[in-house]
Amino acid sequence: MQKINVGVFGGTGYTGLELIRLLNHHPGVNLNFATSESSAGESLRENWPLAPDILLQSMNDVALEDIDCVFLCLPHTKSAAVARKAISLNIRVVDLSADLRISDPIKYEQWYGIPHPEPDLLPVPYGLPELGRADLVGANVIANPGCYATSILLGLTPLVRKSLILPDTPIIIDAKSGTSGAGRTPKQHILFGEVYGNFSPYNIGRSHRHLGEIEQILSTEGLEQGRLIFSPHLLPTDRGILAAIYVQVVNIEQSHQAFHDFYDQEALVEVLPKGSLATLAHVVRTPLTAISLTAAAETMLIVMVAIDNLLKGASSQAIQNFNLMHGLPETTGLLSTPGASG
Amino acid sequence: MQKINVGVFGGTGYTGLELIRLLNHHPGVNLNFATSESSAGESLRENWPLAPDILLQSMNDVALEDIDCVFLCLPHTKSAAVARKAISLNIRVVDLSADLRISDPIKYEQWYGIPHPEPDLLPVPYGLPELGRADLVGANVIANPGCYATSILLGLTPLVRKSLILPDTPIIIDAKSGTSGAGRTPKQHILFGEVYGNFSPYNIGRSHRHLGEIEQILSTEGLEQGRLIFSPHLLPTDRGILAAIYVQVVNIEQSHQAFHDFYDQEALVEVLPKGSLATLAHVVRTPLTAISLTAAAETMLIVMVAIDNLLKGASSQAIQNFNLMHGLPETTGLLSTPGASG
Amino acid sequence: MQKINVGVFGGTGYTGLELIRLLNHHPGVNLNFATSESSAGESLRENWPLAPDILLQSMNDVALEDIDCVFLCLPHTKSAAVARKAISLNIRVVDLSADLRISDPIKYEQWYGIPHPEPDLLPVPYGLPELGRADLVGANVIANPGCYATSILLGLTPLVRKSLILPDTPIIIDAKSGTSGAGRTPKQHILFGEVYGNFSPYNIGRSHRHLGEIEQILSTEGLEQGRLIFSPHLLPTDRGILAAIYVQVVNIEQSHQAFHDFYDQEALVEVLPKGSLATLAHVVRTPLTAISLTAAAETMLIVMVAIDNLLKGASSQAIQNFNLMHGLPETTGLLSTPGASG
Amino acid sequence: MQKINVGVFGGTGYTGLELIRLLNHHPGVNLNFATSESSAGESLRENWPLAPDILLQSMNDVALEDIDCVFLCLPHTKSAAVARKAISLNIRVVDLSADLRISDPIKYEQWYGIPHPEPDLLPVPYGLPELGRADLVGANVIANPGCYATSILLGLTPLVRKSLILPDTPIIIDAKSGTSGAGRTPKQHILFGEVYGNFSPYNIGRSHRHLGEIEQILSTEGLEQGRLIFSPHLLPTDRGILAAIYVQVVNIEQSHQAFHDFYDQEALVEVLPKGSLATLAHVVRTPLTAISLTAAAETMLIVMVAIDNLLKGASSQAIQNFNLMHGLPETTGLLSTPGASG
Repeated sequence: MQKINVGVFGGTGYTGLELIRLLNHHPGVNLNFATSESSAGESLRENWPLAPDILLQSMNDVALEDIDCVFLCLPHTKSAAVARKAISLNIRVVDLSADLRISDPIKYEQWYGIPHPEPDLLPVPYGLPELGRADLVGANVIANPGCYATSILLGLTPLVRKSLILPDTPIIIDAKSGTSGAGRTPKQHILFGEVYGNFSPYNIGRSHRHLGEIEQILSTEGLEQGRLIFSPHLLPTDRGILAAIYVQVVNIEQSHQAFHDFYDQEALVEVLPKGSLATLAHVVRTPLTAISLTAAAETMLIVMVAIDNLLKGASSQAIQNFNLMHGLPETTGLLSTPGASG
Repeated sequence: MQKINVGVFGGTGYTGLELIRLLNHHPGVNLNFATSESSAGESLRENWPLAPDILLQSMNDVALEDIDCVFLCLPHTKSAAVARKAISLNIRVVDLSADLRISDPIKYEQWYGIPHPEPDLLPVPYGLPELGRADLVGANVIANPGCYATSILLGLTPLVRKSLILPDTPIIIDAKSGTSGAGRTPKQHILFGEVYGNFSPYNIGRSHRHLGEIEQILSTEGLEQGRLIFSPHLLPTDRGILAAIYVQVVNIEQSHQAFHDFYDQEALVEVLPKGSLATLAHVVRTPLTAISLTAAAETMLIVMVAIDNLLKGASSQAIQNFNLMHGLPETTGLLSTPGASG
Repeated sequence: MQKINVGVFGGTGYTGLELIRLLNHHPGVNLNFATSESSAGESLRENWPLAPDILLQSMNDVALEDIDCVFLCLPHTKSAAVARKAISLNIRVVDLSADLRISDPIKYEQWYGIPHPEPDLLPVPYGLPELGRADLVGANVIANPGCYATSILLGLTPLVRKSLILPDTPIIIDAKSGTSGAGRTPKQHILFGEVYGNFSPYNIGRSHRHLGEIEQILSTEGLEQGRLIFSPHLLPTDRGILAAIYVQVVNIEQSHQAFHDFYDQEALVEVLPKGSLATLAHVVRTPLTAISLTAAAETMLIVMVAIDNLLKGASSQAIQNFNLMHGLPETTGLLSTPGASG
Repeated sequence: MQKINVGVFGGTGYTGLELIRLLNHHPGVNLNFATSESSAGESLRENWPLAPDILLQSMNDVALEDIDCVFLCLPHTKSAAVARKAISLNIRVVDLSADLRISDPIKYEQWYGIPHPEPDLLPVPYGLPELGRADLVGANVIANPGCYATSILLGLTPLVRKSLILPDTPIIIDAKSGTSGAGRTPKQHILFGEVYGNFSPYNIGRSHRHLGEIEQILSTEGLEQGRLIFSPHLLPTDRGILAAIYVQVVNIEQSHQAFHDFYDQEALVEVLPKGSLATLAHVVRTPLTAISLTAAAETMLIVMVAIDNLLKGASSQAIQNFNLMHGLPETTGLLSTPGASG
């Protein structure tokens, strides 16, 4: 197999490091470069001990001539311009930032408080493969979903698509994430001394930015906007998301069936047997999603969704999208490893 | 002040150790004994380094003649018989087990799967002082509430009492507790290696035993039974409970007012200013409760309640009850300490 | 008792917060102000929820007229100038920074890489009360020791003073500290995601700055300089220091005796019985020091010293010094609290 | 390649689970069975969610006919009898227990307090491949080293073999391990509530059992017995060992050279560049060893050795040994994985 030449923009954040780790073992990939503005000139080993000895370069110094595909692990607003440049050079793009996720620039501005930096690029296929691969196979640009958004969309779409959610009822999502979701840039609230022994909600209700992309996708599936109540919390752990979704359904048995129909053929999603509950330990350091279903009352279903925020919530999903773009089997580089279960 | 002679049954569990720590600094108390079946004959220092050098005795060996009050930190089903004996000797009892919390022996059996060991003792005042002190002042026996129950009742009673909850809507409680809530008896699921880096739900829906006492109290306040959906989770931290309560209300402003009316004169409950969210760090290692209110939609209120499961959820609440029993100021021994905020 | 008016410079670091917590419950103190450059104008409650509602002021805005004593929790090099100003106003000073610990400005420059900011102030009494109180009682200025230095000096001075250490042998100190020792200013290496699940040495050998003050004190006690090998490590916990000291002694039994002679009358130091080993759990959140002695070979003694780095290693030791300065009993405000053992 | 049929005795402890994870992805292996007395009849998935769906069997029920090799993850004293039986059936054995590590049954009894269960099996090659592979290639039985022993032997053997250690000086080893080293059987001291926020030494001096195997190996290399002082500590993390070795050497530069000569051709050991210090983060969840060397004084060398106690300290080392036994490349199944660096 001829190797695909790739580069990573933003290689020293948690997402970038994880992505490089995966690319480094992907059988179809040559990792040509990784960028870092803060560590340009250093080896990747300064950030990730015993890593491959890759020289980190400033964004402006990388040579793009022979590159087939770039992964963008940059802050939102910074990412779109790099995407535009890559596209102009016929380089494929998997954008892990938020810049290309929301199709409507006005909505982007509502959620992110700033005009969209490159509205001409929109819309771009939303890379959550389990929701549909038609737009992803062979795509030139893919917007990689947010971590919370991934967990919540995986937990709701099977019900929405079958119209199983009771009309006019709120959908409560109480979600918890490890601190790597907040990035690797030093801020006081994610210092060890602040997080250790603590557990804290933030941006609860209808204020977290991922609501924008979640409701965009669910509205195309037929769910009216405004029904989600979403409360993220910071867990005193490094990685993993567990989303507890409380949703009232027309029929509990049909809901179970909808999840099995949706996921039983999926390699990376596991619907747990009745009685088991999804936990972080099911999925942390794997590309997998674990989903459990619990009937709590006649019409009340509790959907628990667990993912690793840095893998299925970011980097391993980016690999799924990369594989689909390039006609490779979707799980190439993700499963045949001691680190991964299943 | 003449000291009150007390004893602690079950002194080497997490609740018992915390209670002894509090009693040891309570200005009105002589701690006469502490029992432990597993550590009888050892000093308390074997369990709690640098603790007072108290000899642990077997339950059957303690002398009760001069005792005024006992605290029972025993497993449910074991506690009631000791309570009965103490009552027969005119010794006051604060029971921290579940045995005396549920007034109806049939309900006890439904939740605990075993006939009530001492049904003649029932009913007993339920010791959540902020809900009403009439039955607690001067009482001879008090049932100390469960830890989850304390947090949830503090979060719902102000709304229930003012009839502010929308009829026929579910009340969702997504609660999280540190591992000390699961006790100090070795079990595999609370080993460090199992909990570290994990986060896991358990007994979700309508199966956790604390639902019994919660719905008993709320039904006397006017809420019909069966409306609560309650999902406890095990946090990778040692102590603290955060309960997120999603409740639909008639009026958001009146709901805010109801909480302030209920708690503004309370020494141990703090309703946070708008915009602040309750976290574990607010309350861990203090006898305090922190409550925050967030309007998430027109009728959707998110009530966050944070307590220390071993203090307000167990031992400091037991001291509040003890003080009320004996006509002492309710916060005696709880506030004038470096460890406590406020 | 007439209250002593105090102020805290640097009130929102970990040390300052802990100190305010202690002062707030000290029966002889009025806390008049606390400063913070980053949070000036905010209430202390923004940093420490449920704290007393103290307005944080900029250093330059505080009124010093009626102040009797200030505590300096400022970075080294910043602290000395504030000390000088306070002294000139006849205000007592407990300096928790490193600025006044090293008597010789040349040595200061060697360790801190910068000329001493106020050499005229030197020397100042070194406030480790268990090593001698003569210079501390009634003092106007005291240099509060470093956290590692406190643990190591408490573990070696009894042996040095009795000349029990074998000549010409190295003294190995393998020490571990929770992350609060690294302060509350955001830096990448103390982010939760970096520390969680990790354990890492730093500045090992003879490069950590606390060696300067340790060897200064030990040389006055009769130990030649240069014999200590000191390896600090960052523990994945928020607080506590455990120092393992490997020292070859003339006689094991006399060494035990030396520790008991030195500490048996001390209220805040506990020499554990043979067979017990000092741990963080003995001391965290208390003003106490736990010391254990283990004979590992004919002349090899292992001294384990455990302290809370923010308390005995900083703020509770500052209170000891404050009490001595003002003729109060040394443990005033430190022991009669539920949070403290013993 | 024809697959080698293997079985795992003791499949639900931490070591067994990790070994199964590795075997499951080893390209040359068929995992035929795994045993568990406590979970016989259950799927492995009850212990390790999303694991392969392997039925756990009781030891007495497994069919050994077609088995080529067994791994013993059993408690010491239980393991030797299974080894004997397997050997009698011409099945190869990698024993991860302590039973076959000490060649002299009398020494075994001294350290383990019980007569050796199968002295006829002794001696057996000690499987630390980096120390020498001559006895391991093609071997029928290998004793897999202890976790602490692995880290310490890797840190001392290069010096011992070159006679670089100063005569008559003590060798101080201050070692720290995550809790998985204490196993998965419930005991109070490894409960989450006991370990969280704590750090504690145990069996310090010359009492830990791994000293037996360490000194046995080092004495064959030429170091007299009795010189090691070894202090293990329990870290509040789930996995990883960091050993700090303080050793006085004849010559610092020659010591550096000795380590490079010893390890520069090794695939799984990394001697870090000067100035870098080995940490747990270098190695956790990898089969690698990281070693750093720091000259602390003229003759004082600090050797830091970091391994994952469950991998290089147990299961990945067992795979190295298995590969050597069967003539496979030593790192087969260990490196080409996203989970592993390098």
